[in-house]
Amino acid sequence: MAFVLDETAQNLLFREAHTANTFSDAPVTDEQIKAVYDLVKLAPTAFNQSPLRVTLVRTPEARERLVQHLADGNKAKTRTAPITAILSVDLEFHERLPELFPVMPALKDTVFADADAREANGRFNAALQAGYFILGVRAAGLAAGPMTGLDFEGVDKEFFGDGRQKTLLVVNIGHPGPDAFRPRGPRLSADEAVTTV
Amino acid sequence: MAFVLDETAQNLLFREAHTANTFSDAPVTDEQIKAVYDLVKLAPTAFNQSPLRVTLVRTPEARERLVQHLADGNKAKTRTAPITAILSVDLEFHERLPELFPVMPALKDTVFADADAREANGRFNAALQAGYFILGVRAAGLAAGPMTGLDFEGVDKEFFGDGRQKTLLVVNIGHPGPDAFRPRGPRLSADEAVTTV
Repeated sequence: MAFVLDETAQNLLFREAHTANTFSDAPVTDEQIKAVYDLVKLAPTAFNQSPLRVTLVRTPEARERLVQHLADGNKAKTRTAPITAILSVDLEFHERLPELFPVMPALKDTVFADADAREANGRFNAALQAGYFILGVRAAGLAAGPMTGLDFEGVDKEFFGDGRQKTLLVVNIGHPGPDAFRPRGPRLSADEAVTTV
Repeated sequence: MAFVLDETAQNLLFREAHTANTFSDAPVTDEQIKAVYDLVKLAPTAFNQSPLRVTLVRTPEARERLVQHLADGNKAKTRTAPITAILSVDLEFHERLPELFPVMPALKDTVFADADAREANGRFNAALQAGYFILGVRAAGLAAGPMTGLDFEGVDKEFFGDGRQKTLLVVNIGHPGPDAFRPRGPRLSADEAVTTV
């Protein structure tokens, strides 16, 4: 037995979970998404930098502001989702570092005084957190529909006009509707992706 | 109740799991890590691109080749880990796309013919997978010790001499040893990191 996590949980998070492409009318509350965040925020980032930010799009007006920047194939399904999360990196995450990682108080004004270092670090660590977040949505019994088919600069200008946050991923969240799932594509096997030296 | 995932599983993956800084002598097999990969490979990437590659470092010789490129603070603990995984992105992931995402067979020779587009996409999606992988290690009842304090170019040259793979994260994996855990740092609250528009 390779896992301590029981099979029901493995199935919920991985085997029986699929990207949803339609959503039912069942609502999703902000509190549900905040509970997801409060669970997944505990998973690690480098120097505890915690650069992920989540912007929840709910109202019809906000939704249309987002939909106009999505690829055509992503528009209809996003209109059916009860809530859509824009996952972004806060490029000024270093401002909070003295509080988040007090054992190295100089980081903010040395390594992370450099905007390029911040962006590379922040993008990687926010992406790690995006991975945790997708599994957290599934842990809440919700279906996630992550999308990268969009005009990133357009979404940034629309929602993050000051340039401080950069969009990484947009995730529709809800309960699956009719014909929500496509067949899962093949994956690389462990023998292809894992090597031992 | 915000979660379908039961509390035991939530605790295993998030609340009671911590980055390990020492490891016991208890072994970890390649098969355990391959089982982790085979579970987490099911979680989504854009266009099913699956760019993450895992290189397992086990022998004393391979370990020293890795350790020389780590920050001083990461050397001793890496020597105590029974196995260490180098998580990297395969910058030529597009070669497998016609098989992994057959509904858009042109992707390989259009969007992803461009090396910069491949690198940006691959790094983001491999980082998502790295997040899944860390939680998968925990699901296997193992402790993960992810590290970014290292000479990335040095590790790349040492293990990926042909330049095709780029190191993203190095993760010690094992059973925790004495004094393995540091106190968890504070996290940003949901009210700070999650906003609704």
